[in-house]
Amino acid sequence: MTVSPANLQSPAEDPATAHYLLLSGGVDSSTLAGWVQHSHRGAPIVAITFMYGQKHGVECDAASAVAAHYGLEHRVVGLSAIEGSALTDDHQAVPEGRDLATVTGVAPTYVPARNLLFLATLASIADAHGPADLWLGVHRDDHTGYPDTRPEFVRAADEAVRLGTQYGLRVKAPFVEWSKADVVRWGVGHEVPYDLTLSCYQGSRPGCGVCDTCQARIEAFREAGAVDPIPYKVEG
Amino acid sequence: MTVSPANLQSPAEDPATAHYLLLSGGVDSSTLAGWVQHSHRGAPIVAITFMYGQKHGVECDAASAVAAHYGLEHRVVGLSAIEGSALTDDHQAVPEGRDLATVTGVAPTYVPARNLLFLATLASIADAHGPADLWLGVHRDDHTGYPDTRPEFVRAADEAVRLGTQYGLRVKAPFVEWSKADVVRWGVGHEVPYDLTLSCYQGSRPGCGVCDTCQARIEAFREAGAVDPIPYKVEG
Repeated sequence: MTVSPANLQSPAEDPATAHYLLLSGGVDSSTLAGWVQHSHRGAPIVAITFMYGQKHGVECDAASAVAAHYGLEHRVVGLSAIEGSALTDDHQAVPEGRDLATVTGVAPTYVPARNLLFLATLASIADAHGPADLWLGVHRDDHTGYPDTRPEFVRAADEAVRLGTQYGLRVKAPFVEWSKADVVRWGVGHEVPYDLTLSCYQGSRPGCGVCDTCQARIEAFREAGAVDPIPYKVEG
Repeated sequence: MTVSPANLQSPAEDPATAHYLLLSGGVDSSTLAGWVQHSHRGAPIVAITFMYGQKHGVECDAASAVAAHYGLEHRVVGLSAIEGSALTDDHQAVPEGRDLATVTGVAPTYVPARNLLFLATLASIADAHGPADLWLGVHRDDHTGYPDTRPEFVRAADEAVRLGTQYGLRVKAPFVEWSKADVVRWGVGHEVPYDLTLSCYQGSRPGCGVCDTCQARIEAFREAGAVDPIPYKVEG
Protein backbone atom coordinates (compact mmCIF):
# COMPACT_ATOMS: atom_id res chain seq x y z
CA MET A 1 0.00 0.00 0.00
CA THR A 2 1.60 3.28 -1.05
CA VAL A 3 0.77 6.63 0.42
CA SER A 4 1.98 9.82 -1.15
CA PRO A 5 2.12 12.35 1.69
CA ALA A 6 1.64 15.24 -0.75
CA ASN A 7 -1.93 14.04 -1.21
CA LEU A 8 -2.73 14.13 2.45
CA GLN A 9 -3.78 16.88 4.81
CA SER A 10 -1.07 17.96 7.18
CA PRO A 11 -1.12 15.79 10.29
CA ALA A 12 0.55 18.58 12.26
CA GLU A 13 -2.24 18.92 14.81
CA ASP A 14 -2.15 17.85 18.44
CA PRO A 15 -1.57 14.07 18.57
CA ALA A 16 -4.21 13.89 21.33
CA THR A 17 -6.86 14.78 18.75
CA ALA A 18 -9.28 11.93 18.15
CA HIS A 19 -10.93 11.32 14.79
CA TYR A 20 -14.59 10.46 14.25
CA LEU A 21 -15.79 9.65 10.79
CA LEU A 22 -19.18 9.07 9.25
CA LEU A 23 -19.06 5.66 7.59
CA SER A 24 -22.09 4.54 5.59
CA GLY A 25 -20.31 1.69 3.83
CA GLY A 26 -20.54 3.32 0.39
CA VAL A 27 -17.72 4.47 -1.89
CA ASP A 28 -17.26 7.99 -0.55
CA SER A 29 -17.15 7.27 3.17
CA SER A 30 -15.11 4.09 2.71
CA THR A 31 -12.53 6.11 0.77
CA LEU A 32 -12.64 8.62 3.62
CA ALA A 33 -11.88 5.81 6.07
CA GLY A 34 -8.79 5.05 3.99
CA TRP A 35 -7.83 8.73 3.89
CA VAL A 36 -8.11 9.23 7.65
CA GLN A 37 -6.32 5.99 8.38
CA HIS A 38 -3.43 6.90 6.04
CA SER A 39 -3.15 10.47 7.25
CA HIS A 40 -3.56 9.84 11.01
CA ARG A 41 -2.08 6.41 11.54
CA GLY A 42 -1.78 5.67 15.24
CA ALA A 43 -4.35 8.26 16.35
CA PRO A 44 -7.67 7.10 17.81
CA ILE A 45 -10.13 6.75 14.91
CA VAL A 46 -13.77 5.90 15.47
CA ALA A 47 -16.07 5.12 12.54
CA ILE A 48 -19.74 5.75 13.19
CA THR A 49 -22.68 4.42 11.19
CA PHE A 50 -26.06 5.99 11.80
CA MET A 51 -29.30 4.06 11.54
CA TYR A 52 -32.02 6.61 10.84
CA GLY A 53 -34.88 4.59 9.41
CA GLN A 54 -33.27 3.63 6.11
CA LYS A 55 -35.36 1.04 4.29
CA HIS A 56 -32.46 -1.39 4.27
CA GLY A 57 -29.78 -2.19 6.85
CA VAL A 58 -27.26 -3.96 4.62
CA GLU A 59 -25.12 -0.83 4.36
CA CYS A 60 -24.38 -1.26 8.05
CA ASP A 61 -22.79 -4.65 7.33
CA ALA A 62 -20.68 -3.07 4.59
CA ALA A 63 -19.57 -0.30 6.97
CA SER A 64 -18.64 -2.88 9.55
CA ALA A 65 -16.52 -4.80 7.03
CA VAL A 66 -14.71 -1.63 5.90
CA ALA A 67 -14.03 -0.57 9.51
CA ALA A 68 -12.64 -4.03 10.27
CA HIS A 69 -10.41 -3.85 7.18
CA TYR A 70 -8.83 -0.65 8.51
CA GLY A 71 -8.79 -1.77 12.16
CA LEU A 72 -11.06 1.11 13.20
CA GLU A 73 -13.38 1.11 16.16
CA HIS A 74 -16.90 0.90 14.70
CA ARG A 75 -20.05 2.12 16.46
CA VAL A 76 -23.61 1.93 15.19
CA VAL A 77 -25.75 4.75 16.54
CA GLY A 78 -29.54 4.79 16.30
CA LEU A 79 -31.34 8.04 15.55
CA SER A 80 -35.07 8.64 15.40
CA ALA A 81 -36.34 7.95 11.90
CA ILE A 82 -35.91 11.01 9.69
CA GLU A 83 -39.07 11.92 7.78
CA GLY A 84 -39.45 13.22 4.26
CA SER A 85 -37.06 11.21 2.12
CA ALA A 86 -37.37 8.44 -0.45
CA LEU A 87 -34.64 6.68 1.56
CA THR A 88 -36.78 6.49 4.69
CA ASP A 89 -40.41 6.78 3.60
CA ASP A 90 -42.23 3.66 2.40
CA HIS A 91 -44.65 5.86 0.47
CA GLN A 92 -41.88 7.37 -1.67
CA ALA A 93 -40.13 5.24 -4.29
CA VAL A 94 -36.38 5.43 -4.83
CA PRO A 95 -36.05 6.78 -8.40
CA GLU A 96 -34.61 4.53 -11.12
CA GLY A 97 -33.08 5.26 -14.50
CA ARG A 98 -32.90 9.05 -14.09
CA ASP A 99 -30.46 10.84 -16.40
CA LEU A 100 -28.13 12.27 -13.77
CA ALA A 101 -26.50 14.61 -16.29
CA THR A 102 -29.75 16.57 -16.66
CA VAL A 103 -31.60 16.36 -13.32
CA THR A 104 -31.75 19.54 -11.25
CA GLY A 105 -33.04 20.53 -7.82
CA VAL A 106 -32.94 18.75 -4.50
CA ALA A 107 -32.85 14.96 -4.91
CA PRO A 108 -35.84 12.83 -3.79
CA THR A 109 -33.25 10.88 -1.84
CA TYR A 110 -32.20 14.01 0.11
CA VAL A 111 -32.72 13.30 3.82
CA PRO A 112 -33.71 16.49 5.68
CA ALA A 113 -30.71 18.07 7.42
CA ARG A 114 -28.99 14.70 7.55
CA ASN A 115 -25.37 15.86 7.50
CA LEU A 116 -25.98 18.54 10.12
CA LEU A 117 -27.72 16.02 12.35
CA PHE A 118 -24.94 13.48 11.84
CA LEU A 119 -22.23 16.07 12.59
CA ALA A 120 -24.07 17.36 15.66
CA THR A 121 -24.41 13.81 16.98
CA LEU A 122 -20.73 13.10 16.32
CA ALA A 123 -19.89 16.39 18.06
CA SER A 124 -21.93 15.44 21.08
CA ILE A 125 -20.25 12.03 21.35
CA ALA A 126 -16.74 13.42 20.82
CA ASP A 127 -17.02 16.58 22.94
CA ALA A 128 -17.60 14.48 26.06
CA HIS A 129 -14.00 13.27 25.78
CA GLY A 130 -11.60 15.82 24.28
CA PRO A 131 -10.36 17.54 21.11
CA ALA A 132 -11.49 15.84 17.90
CA ASP A 133 -11.87 16.17 14.16
CA LEU A 134 -15.17 15.08 12.62
CA TRP A 135 -14.81 13.73 9.08
CA LEU A 136 -17.38 13.84 6.30
CA GLY A 137 -17.00 12.20 2.85
CA VAL A 138 -19.01 14.67 0.74
CA HIS A 139 -17.87 15.58 -2.78
CA ARG A 140 -18.64 17.98 -5.63
CA ASP A 141 -20.98 15.72 -7.63
CA ASP A 142 -23.52 15.77 -4.80
CA HIS A 143 -23.69 19.57 -4.52
CA THR A 144 -26.75 19.99 -6.75
CA GLY A 145 -29.03 17.38 -5.21
CA TYR A 146 -27.92 17.69 -1.59
CA PRO A 147 -27.50 21.18 -0.11
CA ASP A 148 -25.68 19.75 2.90
CA THR A 149 -22.71 18.60 0.82
CA ARG A 150 -21.66 22.05 -0.46
CA PRO A 151 -18.39 23.73 0.61
CA GLU A 152 -20.31 26.64 2.15
CA PHE A 153 -22.29 24.20 4.30
CA VAL A 154 -19.12 22.43 5.40
CA ARG A 155 -17.55 25.78 6.37
CA ALA A 156 -20.65 26.85 8.31
CA ALA A 157 -20.97 23.49 10.05
CA ASP A 158 -17.28 23.64 11.00
CA GLU A 159 -17.85 27.05 12.59
CA ALA A 160 -21.02 25.96 14.42
CA VAL A 161 -19.31 22.83 15.74
CA ARG A 162 -16.19 24.77 16.79
CA LEU A 163 -18.21 27.42 18.65
CA GLY A 164 -20.81 25.04 20.07
CA THR A 165 -18.45 22.59 21.79
CA GLN A 166 -16.27 22.85 24.88
CA TYR A 167 -13.21 21.46 23.03
CA GLY A 168 -13.71 23.51 19.85
CA LEU A 169 -14.07 20.46 17.60
CA ARG A 170 -13.49 20.81 13.85
CA VAL A 171 -15.22 19.44 10.74
CA LYS A 172 -13.10 18.14 7.86
CA ALA A 173 -14.30 17.18 4.39
CA PRO A 174 -11.19 16.59 2.28
CA PHE A 175 -13.13 15.57 -0.87
CA VAL A 176 -15.57 18.49 -0.90
CA GLU A 177 -14.11 19.99 -4.10
CA TRP A 178 -13.40 16.64 -5.78
CA SER A 179 -15.58 14.79 -8.27
CA LYS A 180 -16.70 11.28 -7.37
CA ALA A 181 -14.26 10.02 -10.04
CA ASP A 182 -11.44 11.84 -8.18
CA VAL A 183 -12.49 10.06 -5.00
CA VAL A 184 -12.42 6.67 -6.74
CA ARG A 185 -9.07 7.49 -8.38
CA TRP A 186 -7.50 8.22 -4.98
CA GLY A 187 -9.13 5.15 -3.47
CA VAL A 188 -8.00 2.77 -6.22
CA GLY A 189 -4.47 4.15 -5.87
CA HIS A 190 -4.57 3.46 -2.13
CA GLU A 191 -6.25 0.06 -2.22
CA VAL A 192 -9.55 1.03 -0.62
CA PRO A 193 -11.47 -2.29 -0.36
CA TYR A 194 -14.30 -1.38 -2.74
CA ASP A 195 -15.30 -5.05 -2.91
CA LEU A 196 -16.59 -4.68 0.67
CA THR A 197 -18.66 -1.55 -0.02
CA LEU A 198 -22.34 -1.21 -0.91
CA SER A 199 -23.83 1.83 -2.63
CA CYS A 200 -27.25 0.78 -4.02
CA TYR A 201 -30.23 2.83 -2.71
CA GLN A 202 -32.31 -0.36 -3.05
CA GLY A 203 -29.88 -2.10 -0.68
CA SER A 204 -29.42 -4.74 -3.33
CA ARG A 205 -26.43 -7.07 -3.79
CA PRO A 206 -25.64 -7.31 -6.70
CA GLY A 207 -26.37 -3.56 -7.08
CA CYS A 208 -29.56 -2.75 -9.00
CA GLY A 209 -27.49 -0.65 -11.45
CA VAL A 210 -30.33 1.80 -12.13
CA CYS A 211 -30.85 3.85 -8.94
CA ASP A 212 -29.10 7.24 -8.82
CA THR A 213 -26.25 6.03 -6.64
CA CYS A 214 -25.54 2.83 -8.63
CA GLN A 215 -25.46 4.96 -11.79
CA ALA A 216 -23.14 7.54 -10.18
CA ARG A 217 -20.82 4.80 -8.91
CA ILE A 218 -20.60 3.02 -12.26
CA GLU A 219 -19.88 6.33 -14.00
CA ALA A 220 -17.22 7.33 -11.44
CA PHE A 221 -15.30 4.07 -11.88
CA ARG A 222 -15.58 4.45 -15.68
CA GLU A 223 -14.27 8.03 -15.54
CA ALA A 224 -11.46 6.99 -13.21
CA GLY A 225 -10.52 4.22 -15.67
CA ALA A 226 -10.91 1.66 -12.89
CA VAL A 227 -12.75 -1.62 -12.50
CA ASP A 228 -15.60 -1.66 -9.99
CA PRO A 229 -15.20 -4.98 -8.14
CA ILE A 230 -18.90 -5.36 -7.25
CA PRO A 231 -21.46 -6.96 -9.58
CA TYR A 232 -24.67 -5.33 -10.90
CA LYS A 233 -27.96 -6.77 -12.10
CA VAL A 234 -28.05 -4.21 -14.92
CA GLU A 235 -25.06 -2.15 -15.98
CA GLY A 236 -26.20 1.06 -17.70
CA MET B 1 -52.66 40.09 28.43
CA THR B 2 -50.94 43.11 26.89
CA VAL B 3 -48.37 42.92 24.14
CA SER B 4 -46.30 45.89 23.15
CA PRO B 5 -45.40 45.31 19.51
CA ALA B 6 -42.24 47.39 19.81
CA ASN B 7 -40.78 44.61 21.95
CA LEU B 8 -41.34 41.95 19.36
CA GLN B 9 -39.43 40.85 16.29
CA SER B 10 -41.04 41.89 13.04
CA PRO B 11 -43.54 39.25 11.93
CA ALA B 12 -43.08 40.39 8.33
CA GLU B 13 -41.89 37.00 7.06
CA ASP B 14 -43.84 34.58 4.90
CA PRO B 15 -47.00 33.54 6.80
CA ALA B 16 -46.37 29.96 5.61
CA THR B 17 -43.31 29.82 7.86
CA ALA B 18 -43.74 27.35 10.70
CA HIS B 19 -42.16 27.86 14.11
CA TYR B 20 -40.42 25.18 16.14
CA LEU B 21 -39.21 25.98 19.62
CA LEU B 22 -37.12 24.17 22.16
CA LEU B 23 -39.18 23.96 25.33
CA SER B 24 -37.55 22.48 28.43
CA GLY B 25 -40.18 23.76 30.85
CA GLY B 26 -37.77 26.16 32.59
CA VAL B 27 -37.93 29.97 32.80
CA ASP B 28 -36.04 30.81 29.61
CA SER B 29 -37.78 28.50 27.17
CA SER B 30 -41.22 29.10 28.72
CA THR B 31 -40.69 32.83 28.23
CA LEU B 32 -39.66 32.04 24.65
CA ALA B 33 -42.95 30.17 24.18
CA GLY B 34 -44.74 33.34 25.24
CA TRP B 35 -42.58 35.45 22.92
CA VAL B 36 -43.21 33.27 19.85
CA GLN B 37 -46.91 32.99 20.60
CA HIS B 38 -47.26 36.76 20.97
CA SER B 39 -45.18 37.59 17.90
CA HIS B 40 -46.55 34.91 15.55
CA ARG B 41 -50.12 34.43 16.65
CA GLY B 42 -51.99 32.25 14.17
CA ALA B 43 -48.88 30.68 12.65
CA PRO B 44 -48.16 26.97 13.23
CA ILE B 45 -46.04 26.72 16.39
CA VAL B 46 -44.63 23.41 17.59
CA ALA B 47 -42.91 23.12 20.98
CA ILE B 48 -40.43 20.28 21.23
CA THR B 49 -39.01 18.80 24.43
CA PHE B 50 -36.00 16.54 24.12
CA MET B 51 -35.39 13.60 26.41
CA TYR B 52 -31.65 12.94 26.32
CA GLY B 53 -30.96 10.92 29.41
CA GLN B 54 -31.62 13.66 31.99
CA LYS B 55 -31.69 12.22 35.49
CA HIS B 56 -35.22 13.48 36.01
CA GLY B 57 -38.22 13.66 33.69
CA VAL B 58 -40.36 16.15 35.63
CA GLU B 59 -39.28 19.01 33.39
CA CYS B 60 -41.17 17.28 30.58
CA ASP B 61 -44.41 17.62 32.59
CA ALA B 62 -43.67 21.32 33.12
CA ALA B 63 -43.05 21.77 29.39
CA SER B 64 -46.30 20.04 28.61
CA ALA B 65 -48.22 22.35 30.97
CA VAL B 66 -46.63 25.47 29.46
CA ALA B 67 -47.39 24.28 25.90
CA ALA B 68 -51.01 23.60 26.88
CA HIS B 69 -51.26 27.08 28.44
CA TYR B 70 -50.28 28.64 25.10
CA GLY B 71 -52.25 26.18 22.97
CA LEU B 72 -49.09 24.96 21.21
CA GLU B 73 -48.60 21.55 19.68
CA HIS B 74 -46.16 19.73 22.01
CA ARG B 75 -43.92 16.86 20.95
CA VAL B 76 -41.51 14.91 23.11
CA VAL B 77 -38.56 13.58 21.12
CA GLY B 78 -36.16 10.96 22.46
CA LEU B 79 -32.45 11.26 21.72
CA SER B 80 -29.72 8.82 22.63
CA ALA B 81 -28.37 9.64 26.08
CA ILE B 82 -25.71 12.34 25.86
CA GLU B 83 -22.54 11.45 27.75
CA GLY B 84 -20.26 13.65 29.78
CA SER B 85 -22.52 15.90 31.84
CA ALA B 86 -23.59 16.13 35.46
CA LEU B 87 -27.15 16.34 34.11
CA THR B 88 -26.97 12.92 32.47
CA ASP B 89 -24.23 10.99 34.27
CA ASP B 90 -25.05 9.18 37.52
CA HIS B 91 -21.37 9.33 38.49
CA GLN B 92 -21.26 13.13 38.40
CA ALA B 93 -23.08 15.15 41.07
CA VAL B 94 -25.04 18.27 40.21
CA PRO B 95 -23.14 21.06 42.03
CA GLU B 96 -24.83 22.86 44.93
CA GLY B 97 -24.18 26.18 46.60
CA ARG B 98 -21.63 27.46 44.08
CA ASP B 99 -21.07 31.22 44.05
CA LEU B 100 -22.25 31.95 40.51
CA ALA B 101 -20.75 35.45 40.59
CA THR B 102 -17.24 34.01 40.74
CA VAL B 103 -17.30 30.65 38.89
CA THR B 104 -15.51 30.51 35.55
CA GLY B 105 -15.06 27.95 32.79
CA VAL B 106 -17.43 25.47 31.26
CA ALA B 107 -20.16 24.38 33.73
CA PRO B 108 -20.24 20.77 35.00
CA THR B 109 -23.85 20.85 33.84
CA TYR B 110 -22.79 21.64 30.27
CA VAL B 111 -24.16 18.87 28.04
CA PRO B 112 -21.79 18.24 25.11
CA ALA B 113 -22.97 20.01 21.94
CA ARG B 114 -26.54 19.98 23.25
CA ASN B 115 -27.86 23.08 21.50
CA LEU B 116 -26.32 22.10 18.16
CA LEU B 117 -27.80 18.63 18.47
CA PHE B 118 -31.20 20.05 19.44
CA LEU B 119 -31.17 22.54 16.56
CA ALA B 120 -30.05 19.90 14.05
CA THR B 121 -32.86 17.61 15.19
CA LEU B 122 -35.41 20.43 14.96
CA ALA B 123 -34.04 21.23 11.50
CA SER B 124 -34.44 17.65 10.38
CA ILE B 125 -38.03 17.51 11.61
CA ALA B 126 -38.98 20.89 10.15
CA ASP B 127 -37.15 20.61 6.81
CA ALA B 128 -39.31 17.63 5.82
CA HIS B 129 -42.29 19.99 5.62
CA GLY B 130 -41.39 23.55 4.54
CA PRO B 131 -39.91 26.90 5.58
CA ALA B 132 -39.47 27.29 9.33
CA ASP B 133 -37.84 29.28 12.09
CA LEU B 134 -36.16 27.35 14.90
CA TRP B 135 -36.28 29.16 18.25
CA LEU B 136 -33.79 28.91 21.09
CA GLY B 137 -34.16 30.59 24.53
CA VAL B 138 -30.48 31.21 25.33
CA HIS B 139 -29.42 34.41 27.13
CA ARG B 140 -26.30 36.34 28.16
CA ASP B 141 -25.93 34.96 31.68
CA ASP B 142 -25.24 31.47 30.29
CA HIS B 143 -22.43 32.58 27.95
CA THR B 144 -19.58 31.76 30.34
CA GLY B 145 -20.59 28.25 31.38
CA TYR B 146 -22.17 27.10 28.13
CA PRO B 147 -20.29 27.82 24.87
CA ASP B 148 -23.38 26.90 22.85
CA THR B 149 -25.39 29.86 24.17
CA ARG B 150 -23.09 32.63 22.83
CA PRO B 151 -24.16 35.00 20.04
CA GLU B 152 -21.34 33.79 17.81
CA PHE B 153 -22.60 30.22 18.19
CA VAL B 154 -26.16 31.27 17.39
CA ARG B 155 -24.95 33.08 14.25
CA ALA B 156 -22.89 30.08 13.12
CA ALA B 157 -25.71 27.63 13.83
CA ASP B 158 -28.12 29.84 11.88
CA GLU B 159 -25.76 29.75 8.90
CA ALA B 160 -25.21 25.98 9.12
CA VAL B 161 -28.96 25.34 9.39
CA ARG B 162 -29.73 27.73 6.51
CA LEU B 163 -27.15 26.14 4.20
CA GLY B 164 -27.75 22.56 5.28
CA THR B 165 -31.52 22.40 4.66
CA GLN B 166 -33.60 22.33 1.50
CA TYR B 167 -35.89 25.13 2.75
CA GLY B 168 -33.10 27.34 4.13
CA LEU B 169 -34.43 27.25 7.71
CA ARG B 170 -33.35 29.96 10.17
CA VAL B 171 -32.36 29.99 13.85
CA LYS B 172 -33.71 32.73 16.12
CA ALA B 173 -32.62 33.49 19.66
CA PRO B 174 -34.29 36.77 20.66
CA PHE B 175 -32.88 36.79 24.22
CA VAL B 176 -29.25 36.06 23.32
CA GLU B 177 -28.04 39.52 24.43
CA TRP B 178 -30.42 39.78 27.41
CA SER B 179 -29.68 38.95 31.03
CA LYS B 180 -31.85 36.33 32.72
CA ALA B 181 -33.43 39.18 34.70
CA ASP B 182 -34.38 40.85 31.38
CA VAL B 183 -36.03 37.61 30.31
CA VAL B 184 -38.02 37.44 33.56
CA ARG B 185 -38.93 41.12 33.29
CA TRP B 186 -40.40 40.59 29.82
CA GLY B 187 -42.15 37.42 30.94
CA VAL B 188 -43.71 38.94 34.03
CA GLY B 189 -44.93 41.85 31.87
CA HIS B 190 -46.55 39.37 29.48
CA GLU B 191 -48.00 36.96 32.01
CA VAL B 192 -45.79 33.97 31.27
CA PRO B 193 -47.13 31.20 33.56
CA TYR B 194 -44.02 30.82 35.74
CA ASP B 195 -46.07 28.86 38.28
CA LEU B 196 -46.11 25.99 35.74
CA THR B 197 -42.36 26.00 35.11
CA LEU B 198 -39.61 23.95 36.71
CA SER B 199 -35.94 24.93 36.73
CA CYS B 200 -34.22 22.84 39.43
CA TYR B 201 -31.31 20.65 38.20
CA GLN B 202 -32.29 18.16 40.90
CA GLY B 203 -35.77 17.96 39.36
CA SER B 204 -37.17 18.83 42.76
CA ARG B 205 -40.56 20.46 43.52
CA PRO B 206 -40.30 22.62 45.62
CA GLY B 207 -37.00 23.65 43.97
CA CYS B 208 -33.88 22.72 45.95
CA GLY B 209 -32.82 26.39 45.99
CA VAL B 210 -29.10 25.59 45.95
CA CYS B 211 -28.25 24.12 42.53
CA ASP B 212 -26.86 26.58 39.94
CA THR B 213 -30.14 26.98 38.12
CA CYS B 214 -32.32 27.47 41.24
CA GLN B 215 -29.84 30.13 42.39
CA ALA B 216 -29.84 31.84 38.99
CA ARG B 217 -33.64 31.80 38.86
CA ILE B 218 -34.05 33.25 42.36
CA GLU B 219 -31.51 35.98 41.56
CA ALA B 220 -33.18 36.84 38.22
CA PHE B 221 -36.60 37.33 39.83
CA ARG B 222 -34.97 39.41 42.58
CA GLU B 223 -33.17 41.61 40.01
CA ALA B 224 -36.37 41.98 37.99
CA GLY B 225 -38.20 43.05 41.15
CA ALA B 226 -40.70 40.24 40.62
CA VAL B 227 -42.12 37.47 42.77
CA ASP B 228 -41.20 33.93 41.78
CA PRO B 229 -44.44 31.96 42.16
CA ILE B 230 -42.77 28.60 42.84
CA PRO B 231 -41.68 27.45 46.32
CA TYR B 232 -38.14 26.46 47.37
CA LYS B 233 -36.83 24.20 50.11
CA VAL B 234 -34.03 26.70 50.81
CA GLU B 235 -34.00 30.25 49.52
CA GLY B 236 -30.42 31.57 49.30
